[in-house]
Amino acid sequence: MRLSLLIFPADNVVVNGIAVKADHILTFQCYKLSFLLPANAAYVGQVHVLDIGLHKKFEPNLTAAYELVDENLIASIYQPRNRFAHKGNFGHAIIIAGSYGKAGAAVLATKACVRAGAGLTTVHIPRSAYAILQAAVPEAMVSSDANSYLLTKIEEDLSRFNAAGVGPGIATAAETKILLKELLKQFNQPIVLDADALNILAAENELMRMLPANSILTPHPKEFERLFGKTENDLARFQLAKQKAKDLNALIVLKGHHTLIATPGGKFYFNNTGNAGMAKGGSGDVLTGILTSLLAQNYDSVEAALFGVYVHGLAGDIAAKKFSREAMIATDIIECLGEAFKLVSDLQ
Amino acid sequence: MRLSLLIFPADNVVVNGIAVKADHILTFQCYKLSFLLPANAAYVGQVHVLDIGLHKKFEPNLTAAYELVDENLIASIYQPRNRFAHKGNFGHAIIIAGSYGKAGAAVLATKACVRAGAGLTTVHIPRSAYAILQAAVPEAMVSSDANSYLLTKIEEDLSRFNAAGVGPGIATAAETKILLKELLKQFNQPIVLDADALNILAAENELMRMLPANSILTPHPKEFERLFGKTENDLARFQLAKQKAKDLNALIVLKGHHTLIATPGGKFYFNNTGNAGMAKGGSGDVLTGILTSLLAQNYDSVEAALFGVYVHGLAGDIAAKKFSREAMIATDIIECLGEAFKLVSDLQ
Amino acid sequence: MRLSLLIFPADNVVVNGIAVKADHILTFQCYKLSFLLPANAAYVGQVHVLDIGLHKKFEPNLTAAYELVDENLIASIYQPRNRFAHKGNFGHAIIIAGSYGKAGAAVLATKACVRAGAGLTTVHIPRSAYAILQAAVPEAMVSSDANSYLLTKIEEDLSRFNAAGVGPGIATAAETKILLKELLKQFNQPIVLDADALNILAAENELMRMLPANSILTPHPKEFERLFGKTENDLARFQLAKQKAKDLNALIVLKGHHTLIATPGGKFYFNNTGNAGMAKGGSGDVLTGILTSLLAQNYDSVEAALFGVYVHGLAGDIAAKKFSREAMIATDIIECLGEAFKLVSDLQ
Amino acid sequence: MRLSLLIFPADNVVVNGIAVKADHILTFQCYKLSFLLPANAAYVGQVHVLDIGLHKKFEPNLTAAYELVDENLIASIYQPRNRFAHKGNFGHAIIIAGSYGKAGAAVLATKACVRAGAGLTTVHIPRSAYAILQAAVPEAMVSSDANSYLLTKIEEDLSRFNAAGVGPGIATAAETKILLKELLKQFNQPIVLDADALNILAAENELMRMLPANSILTPHPKEFERLFGKTENDLARFQLAKQKAKDLNALIVLKGHHTLIATPGGKFYFNNTGNAGMAKGGSGDVLTGILTSLLAQNYDSVEAALFGVYVHGLAGDIAAKKFSREAMIATDIIECLGEAFKLVSDLQ
Repeated sequence: MRLSLLIFPADNVVVNGIAVKADHILTFQCYKLSFLLPANAAYVGQVHVLDIGLHKKFEPNLTAAYELVDENLIASIYQPRNRFAHKGNFGHAIIIAGSYGKAGAAVLATKACVRAGAGLTTVHIPRSAYAILQAAVPEAMVSSDANSYLLTKIEEDLSRFNAAGVGPGIATAAETKILLKELLKQFNQPIVLDADALNILAAENELMRMLPANSILTPHPKEFERLFGKTENDLARFQLAKQKAKDLNALIVLKGHHTLIATPGGKFYFNNTGNAGMAKGGSGDVLTGILTSLLAQNYDSVEAALFGVYVHGLAGDIAAKKFSREAMIATDIIECLGEAFKLVSDLQ
Repeated sequence: MRLSLLIFPADNVVVNGIAVKADHILTFQCYKLSFLLPANAAYVGQVHVLDIGLHKKFEPNLTAAYELVDENLIASIYQPRNRFAHKGNFGHAIIIAGSYGKAGAAVLATKACVRAGAGLTTVHIPRSAYAILQAAVPEAMVSSDANSYLLTKIEEDLSRFNAAGVGPGIATAAETKILLKELLKQFNQPIVLDADALNILAAENELMRMLPANSILTPHPKEFERLFGKTENDLARFQLAKQKAKDLNALIVLKGHHTLIATPGGKFYFNNTGNAGMAKGGSGDVLTGILTSLLAQNYDSVEAALFGVYVHGLAGDIAAKKFSREAMIATDIIECLGEAFKLVSDLQ
Repeated sequence: MRLSLLIFPADNVVVNGIAVKADHILTFQCYKLSFLLPANAAYVGQVHVLDIGLHKKFEPNLTAAYELVDENLIASIYQPRNRFAHKGNFGHAIIIAGSYGKAGAAVLATKACVRAGAGLTTVHIPRSAYAILQAAVPEAMVSSDANSYLLTKIEEDLSRFNAAGVGPGIATAAETKILLKELLKQFNQPIVLDADALNILAAENELMRMLPANSILTPHPKEFERLFGKTENDLARFQLAKQKAKDLNALIVLKGHHTLIATPGGKFYFNNTGNAGMAKGGSGDVLTGILTSLLAQNYDSVEAALFGVYVHGLAGDIAAKKFSREAMIATDIIECLGEAFKLVSDLQ
Repeated sequence: MRLSLLIFPADNVVVNGIAVKADHILTFQCYKLSFLLPANAAYVGQVHVLDIGLHKKFEPNLTAAYELVDENLIASIYQPRNRFAHKGNFGHAIIIAGSYGKAGAAVLATKACVRAGAGLTTVHIPRSAYAILQAAVPEAMVSSDANSYLLTKIEEDLSRFNAAGVGPGIATAAETKILLKELLKQFNQPIVLDADALNILAAENELMRMLPANSILTPHPKEFERLFGKTENDLARFQLAKQKAKDLNALIVLKGHHTLIATPGGKFYFNNTGNAGMAKGGSGDVLTGILTSLLAQNYDSVEAALFGVYVHGLAGDIAAKKFSREAMIATDIIECLGEAFKLVSDLQ
């Protein structure tokens, strides 16, 4: 076997012509953005970071345009539980999810929210999903919509909740658009928006302006395109995400092999956990649950996004090791959150 | 890292001014009450008990105002199963729990009751929760209320049951108050009262006087306040619990990091198992199930309260080790009861 | 600690006066019946069987009045699966179980039947239990009664089934008595009768005479009493079981710490697996499922009874080791059947 | 113990007279077809393949009339997941399964499809199975038929799906025949047909001619007979399968101890994984799910059939080791798919 080797110091390069398909890449001091771009996937093999002997105090003081989410960063975000804490200390999350045929998305998001540590979790679902949710997640309380098939209205007093996650499996019916609009109007804590909530947002531009500050949007590339338009390449998409995060005063979590997190403050983070076994229906619902749970527990939105994306990917990596990339399913990611949190708490 | 060290012999101290935040505390011979108070949490690090060489026969003969529930006490309470026993020997428990949207509380309490060893378990739930309960806990029998959403009336012959647990998720509707009143009237074995049953009690003082002797109330601090009024500090709350336990001829299990058990006989016990991972919706429902199960198995109320709170916390500690404090859920506590009982039986 | 020691050669003794409470009992060559009697429980400690050097060929040729089911006997019964076998070789079992509030009994019996190896399993339940059964045991087919709450009529063609198990949770309504009568009329393979099927039999003596040859009745002592009347002591009850097994041309499995199996051929077997952790609602339903499954797989009734009771107890012992006697539940027994079968197949 | 030993070079022999029952068989270089025939089962013990020193390059160049599916073949088929893949890369599968009383078949096929790695899975079921499916497989989306009991019409836009699997538990009602006909008309990707879909095909010959190219039929011997008529012996049945695969331009997976795969190109493959513990209701439903999942992931039909049958058997072998041949159930096969895929990925 012949291996190709590339020493690659360049940064913002999107391959669009001839390039070496490198089995191994040597680079200096830190990851380069180029390695993280989907468009470059075929050309980027195993990356080896070479220490070029920079002064230890040099790097941490740099303000990079983008940052790789690493264990040090996560260790600095993670808040261990106070011994005397009670469930009130960990907030009350509401998950708004599901429609007829897609109740499973609500199950996954709710389970993940409970497993990620929220003090209390309520899930709002269409009436036909009532028994499904109560049986699948006895730890959660259920708020049933008056409508059997669709989400139309939340009767609960929203001020009881510290965070909301909306979107998995909700479809895009007119009634559900009204529910989303009411939620954005009345709820003034950060909201996690995913899936069909993003599709509604893309179709109803006025809603975009109603997002509570520091809300978190979690589009995959197609949803991103629907929301913000086409871009020429990955780098252009990243720049657009940065711009939109500032404009909307919201976080944008652009899901992919290396999920990008763009903050309202203009920072870029790339996540380095996760694997192709998570490329399956349900993985995104789990992320929505985790993010909502962390917000309810009083992590701020940037912390929640960085920590949530990291621990979601880490749990996915543990699941892949246990069940293989092919056979692992979204429920496995949830069940591996325990091991993931244990690894995080060992970082300290 | 600089560690602060405190040698701390004082007992009934509630910090309300300046105090050392001790990383390590050295104390003589036994735990001091001060270490167990939530108000002192920020000042109490790891406690080291120093043996000051008291005569071995001295301590056990002391009648302390309060006692720490330890392994010796639990070993003396635990009754191993007689080889020739049949299910009749372990009693028939009834769990009365759930309302529309909170059927999960009934699932958790019932599962815990079954797992804690009751010979037979029946659960009374609102009609809409019927299939949920039968699917989740096939070992239990289900008594469905005529009402789909609320508990209104138990049709079962109550004399068949050796113990009852009431409260998880029942809400506080007028109809449910009537059910609770009827239960207190007709049932003359100890009852475990939790959650909304306590809230009903707080609102209907006449019910308080109808409690069967040696019933067990399991309020968390807010429910305690609703029941018995505000107190100035932790110590005052403990004293009030002691007074009320005597007045009501009932046990009061005041839930918290170190759960307090106050007996009608005027004794105080502090539990030392459990952790902040249990600070989540559902943990209390599990405790209700365990306590009811132990009463059905013929443990007396003091034994049931001490043993139940201990084994609940121990199972929670095992769950935290397996799944982390963040990710552990109430169902995990139930699933870890087996390992907890094995540890208890090894104490002998 | 002082230990009492007893050398005890006597056989048919029921303690009803003064007796030594022996911590250790030494006996010659084999177990004595006296050790197996519930009435003697308090007096029988750990039993040590002493080899008195009988000729190896002597014992196997003895025709004992009763026999202890041991590993050799089980190894001789167990039929390993032929490599080329298909599901048709392992028969089609029907479980008839459940009523409103007791659908769990049907779940447990059906799961056990599937796990014990039947080629196909159908369960007949009241209509309200339809979704419960399909969700809990996807491997089984469901035959729903026209009645939501009770069993009234089986529409299936009974000739498709190789064995039937009836009773767990069926209650004793008049309509269900009719169903049982029809079953006994039309089905000419051995039937396992348990729980309320036995209670119906006890109330309707004419049904007793309709039992297909080599059916298996699995009463606990109270059900036995309802069926066949009171007896003075354990030995008298055993003798009555023997008599009734002959009269009815059926097997009687008298459940207890050492379950007794009386055959139509006049033989007595005592089982020696199982433990007090099985003294809980649901254990009997599991036994019904196992026995029906073995009959469907073409074990004859005596083999099925001996093997089924043995493997049920063995799975219970494994469950007790994993989960403790207190916390183990009927579902655990089912889940441990795999390990139990592996131990059995290793006997060969 | 006396062992019989047979050195057996002959190939196409069906025993129908006197033959040695060999405990051990020695054969040269490779398996002989005779060892794989059910009719020879009683005569074929453990097979030992002796290397006769053929030139290494000789064997791979042979075009055998039949081939044993081995690890090398599987390793050459298996496609590891691209790191940058997203769920769109792994296709959208639709499972069409279930009828009243047989919703479990739909649960098993859907779970298997999800676990075998499809990007998205939708299941079409009769309306009464809605909650069952959503609760059992939250990762899948559910398309409910307008009919509660039977499958009558798929409202979904079929062009969204990359592969379809139809048959488990669907029964053979006239309405369902219409559904199947419509499916064959409108869907132009390969379809996996199993169980009652095959029975419908056997009854409606015109449907047979409508099969999309490279569809996969998975009959067991009786279903095969209904489809294509009786044959004199195993070898004749294999030849008939070969002929029909060509005629129909479809793959025929003839299930048995050594499942045969006949391709439209006139090739024969025998699978060598799997065991008699899979001879139970539900195993076939699992295979349907796996095959459909692999087709959706862009394996071609021959690859999907070879790989799917292999990994199904391998997961079954892992399940047998864990739970015993007797106690293993179809759900266990699904749960062991993870370990099976890990073994496959280690082959490379």
